[in-house]
Amino acid sequence: MTLTPEQTTEIEAARASTSPTLRPTVPALEAMLFTAIPVLDHGFIRVVDYMGDDSAVVQAARVSYGRGTRKALEDEGLIRYLMRHYHSTPFEMCEIKFHVKLPIFVARQWIRHRTANVNEYSARYSIMDKDYYIPAPEQLAVQSSDNRQGRGEVLDSQTAERVLNLLREDAEQTYGHYEEMLDEDGIGLARELARMNLTLNTYTQWYWKTDLHNLFHFLRLRADSHAQYEIRVYAEAMLETVKAWVPLSYGAFCDYRLGAVTFSAKMMTVLKKLLADEPVEQATSGLSKREWAEMLAALGR
Amino acid sequence: MTLTPEQTTEIEAARASTSPTLRPTVPALEAMLFTAIPVLDHGFIRVVDYMGDDSAVVQAARVSYGRGTRKALEDEGLIRYLMRHYHSTPFEMCEIKFHVKLPIFVARQWIRHRTANVNEYSARYSIMDKDYYIPAPEQLAVQSSDNRQGRGEVLDSQTAERVLNLLREDAEQTYGHYEEMLDEDGIGLARELARMNLTLNTYTQWYWKTDLHNLFHFLRLRADSHAQYEIRVYAEAMLETVKAWVPLSYGAFCDYRLGAVTFSAKMMTVLKKLLADEPVEQATSGLSKREWAEMLAALGR
Amino acid sequence: MTLTPEQTTEIEAARASTSPTLRPTVPALEAMLFTAIPVLDHGFIRVVDYMGDDSAVVQAARVSYGRGTRKALEDEGLIRYLMRHYHSTPFEMCEIKFHVKLPIFVARQWIRHRTANVNEYSARYSIMDKDYYIPAPEQLAVQSSDNRQGRGEVLDSQTAERVLNLLREDAEQTYGHYEEMLDEDGIGLARELARMNLTLNTYTQWYWKTDLHNLFHFLRLRADSHAQYEIRVYAEAMLETVKAWVPLSYGAFCDYRLGAVTFSAKMMTVLKKLLADEPVEQATSGLSKREWAEMLAALGR
Amino acid sequence: MTLTPEQTTEIEAARASTSPTLRPTVPALEAMLFTAIPVLDHGFIRVVDYMGDDSAVVQAARVSYGRGTRKALEDEGLIRYLMRHYHSTPFEMCEIKFHVKLPIFVARQWIRHRTANVNEYSARYSIMDKDYYIPAPEQLAVQSSDNRQGRGEVLDSQTAERVLNLLREDAEQTYGHYEEMLDEDGIGLARELARMNLTLNTYTQWYWKTDLHNLFHFLRLRADSHAQYEIRVYAEAMLETVKAWVPLSYGAFCDYRLGAVTFSAKMMTVLKKLLADEPVEQATSGLSKREWAEMLAALGR
Repeated sequence: MTLTPEQTTEIEAARASTSPTLRPTVPALEAMLFTAIPVLDHGFIRVVDYMGDDSAVVQAARVSYGRGTRKALEDEGLIRYLMRHYHSTPFEMCEIKFHVKLPIFVARQWIRHRTANVNEYSARYSIMDKDYYIPAPEQLAVQSSDNRQGRGEVLDSQTAERVLNLLREDAEQTYGHYEEMLDEDGIGLARELARMNLTLNTYTQWYWKTDLHNLFHFLRLRADSHAQYEIRVYAEAMLETVKAWVPLSYGAFCDYRLGAVTFSAKMMTVLKKLLADEPVEQATSGLSKREWAEMLAALGR
Repeated sequence: MTLTPEQTTEIEAARASTSPTLRPTVPALEAMLFTAIPVLDHGFIRVVDYMGDDSAVVQAARVSYGRGTRKALEDEGLIRYLMRHYHSTPFEMCEIKFHVKLPIFVARQWIRHRTANVNEYSARYSIMDKDYYIPAPEQLAVQSSDNRQGRGEVLDSQTAERVLNLLREDAEQTYGHYEEMLDEDGIGLARELARMNLTLNTYTQWYWKTDLHNLFHFLRLRADSHAQYEIRVYAEAMLETVKAWVPLSYGAFCDYRLGAVTFSAKMMTVLKKLLADEPVEQATSGLSKREWAEMLAALGR
Repeated sequence: MTLTPEQTTEIEAARASTSPTLRPTVPALEAMLFTAIPVLDHGFIRVVDYMGDDSAVVQAARVSYGRGTRKALEDEGLIRYLMRHYHSTPFEMCEIKFHVKLPIFVARQWIRHRTANVNEYSARYSIMDKDYYIPAPEQLAVQSSDNRQGRGEVLDSQTAERVLNLLREDAEQTYGHYEEMLDEDGIGLARELARMNLTLNTYTQWYWKTDLHNLFHFLRLRADSHAQYEIRVYAEAMLETVKAWVPLSYGAFCDYRLGAVTFSAKMMTVLKKLLADEPVEQATSGLSKREWAEMLAALGR
Repeated sequence: MTLTPEQTTEIEAARASTSPTLRPTVPALEAMLFTAIPVLDHGFIRVVDYMGDDSAVVQAARVSYGRGTRKALEDEGLIRYLMRHYHSTPFEMCEIKFHVKLPIFVARQWIRHRTANVNEYSARYSIMDKDYYIPAPEQLAVQSSDNRQGRGEVLDSQTAERVLNLLREDAEQTYGHYEEMLDEDGIGLARELARMNLTLNTYTQWYWKTDLHNLFHFLRLRADSHAQYEIRVYAEAMLETVKAWVPLSYGAFCDYRLGAVTFSAKMMTVLKKLLADEPVEQATSGLSKREWAEMLAALGR
């Protein structure tokens, strides 16, 4: 992780003194507020502000459902009910803001989640820091043979070394030329032009703010085992902050989303036969071979 | 304003004790937090949570524009620069949540602003309170003759009285039949059906949460003199809370949006001639009569 | 269904002649274009424009996944793969526009779906037609005793008659007073004020345009058995148009969304035990009684 | 411009035959449908589908404003009225889909416009083509001294040559290593990893679909003289297609947005004094030096 000295000073200053507030406050999240959680070799995430807590979800649900719900359901039960039945608006009442440092190719995946507010470091205005992502050797793997977007076996150490050298040397060289083009005593090229010479593993940073419902949507997709490792590790670090922030909502999310399995209508037909000990086979199930395999895997067979 | 006893108790409880927080805190907004500001005869708005302050706007702008901006521009100058040049993303870093009680026909206009989070009291789950909007006599006016969506002259007191009686009697009668249909010892009709008998001046309530950029967009349209009076008064009450919350952003908004005037390309041609004391007239200006009138009005001529 | 004579003429004119286009065209949807499908007593939906077809989904997926997918998967298999794995962006490449006439209380539910474009008839500018929804007697039911937002048993015919009379008389009376207040030779009240006297079963109308992904989201929630009957019938009519428009996407949607069942992490544990013929019971399953019942119901037990 | 042979074949096939449709059709846009308009050295835009026309804007406005508007305003006047008063929803009724080939650093700016649908070529699934952007020599300029995000003087030809060589050589080298890492008979590195070695001037491509209102918003910002040249040329090419598609809306957009000038409340005070031949000066105007200069420039002084 590479925090600039300025950033470290800012974090210390921000953590030095508290103010009194009437707003809902979450001590467990306050304890990690502003502090950077390292991700990858030079990246980090840190929570820089938040609004609301589990009670805000409950409060919003109760304005919708009215007085009667007050006794009928405890807070946890209500939150689980909302999550189970896709009543998403109460979760939108909580908001969180992260400061994230991440490689550009990760930022390009991340930004596809449109329901968020973003302010990114601008390479038109400012000079990019010399920070680029080099994978750990155990993360270097061949193209998967059966999954067009995945990784297969890890490279042997000699091949990995060759890859790491290529990545390192190209990043060094292109950044060097970037600096050379920018040099005010030399070429002095406009920043908005010079930046095009940087490679996609260059780190950028942004403030990223979203509500809890959309954060859960992001996390469900990006903490998933099919997500690329380099974005998944960010999602996993964010999950830890969510757990501290809204433990009841987090629990419901783990149960009904992260760990849940959806069976299609055709799969349900197969499942009912399985439970009735009736014979089933892929060929006549209406499921493709891949679906059949996915279903059996989900059932632990 | 009609707060239920439960709501009054909740407000007092919420204001009774503070918690320490490391988050940005705005004392002027804390002073009004949770408290209801009366609007119309039974409505109100109240701020129930917020996130960020003017510094959060500045901080977001500086991550975008980088270190160099630190000295170049003071905070106020930077915020004014952002507002002037429609750099809207830094304003999205602040978030606010209102609890609003408002007539349904106002809610129907309001909800058209899509970039917000909403949880409304549900008449499927719960019984609507007996609260309906009756305009003050001085708000009753005839249809405008020159503006298809506006009001013209105020009704004379006798005609106003007749209108108020019609509104009151119909609201009373339809609510009475609503109760009769709901009566569990009588008809016991499903709430989701009975509600259709209520009139559009019935009050509803919701939590409404949005970011500062989208709030400004809402306020520019709804605090405008062309907005219907019954929504404008809500916008005006909200402006007071924004002034307390983010005074620098509020100032920039008043200067560059609320009080600003936009001249079309054709109007700019006329304006330049006016400044050069060249003769201009509507017929040859390319402006319609209405545009011509609007332009002269904006120039105070 | 109440089409105005003007609307009927417009529909006939619009269907009278075709133009040649290079765009993807769907004959099955052209066959129903502009034509109104009746919904409830005076409502309708009709498709007034569309863009794209199943091939547009495939085309968008293939720009994402590149050349390799061309042979690997047939179109239908690819669409099913996208739906199964929540790859939603290719479905956003198709767009459809409906003209809908619907009661205001239904419109208030509908508008909560924010990712759509809407232009509604304005009661500030224009006078609302005298059209109000009166349920069919078999739709009148008591409040459900076990579901706070549902209906229970149907009313007996005598009680139903009483309800229908109340609804009819109040709608007649409030509309009559609306007209009286608007009368230009009488009170001449501004339209934006007079409208507040109308009841929530008054019909309004709008153009509603959305992309296929968001339409599917709407339909999953509103064609669901838990949706209120009065919005569900609109969703069901729209499903018919989707079936004609994008049959492959529609098929995938029915299999993976409408007919699918999601089991939580805890439910999956129970399910695996059931399949292994191990004993399970609600008390020790971690599931609430309601979840347990929902799970057994989904499994047809 | 680099169209692949496959793309050229697809375009020819798509243009070869028409279908009859009942939908609104715009011959001037049909004439350019599918055809690629070259942008930069290897990029292009092309319209691949559209929905609606100027009449769709008018139709949507008239459902809002009701029958009365029919005679009051001709179509062009109505469209100009909508644009002038920021009544944006009728413009959302038209939709257009572009296929765009663009450098990654341009794509990163572009994607910040969130209200659009996007499907981008995926470098996780597929191998990126060897296409990278090299500016024309006359586009190479030094960093602006007075505008932190702009360009100043053009480089002399010798310095330009040096920059072009650096850009070319680094792009060649990094792409060469990308290929080497991907080589299935060699390293065979996963695509999702190898891509990080590419430079930001590598071309990508996507389908990008949006409605007319949001397209205008994009064009206002990106066809502006402050936008970076490399995105502005895309905006300018798109403006040509909009002109063919919706000429009345395009005209209103040029007058009320592209060529319009907004004066702040403080500027309006100055302007009124100018028109009254009263003395004004920056120091006492409340305007900053920069605002003062911008205002005079807008007034052609």
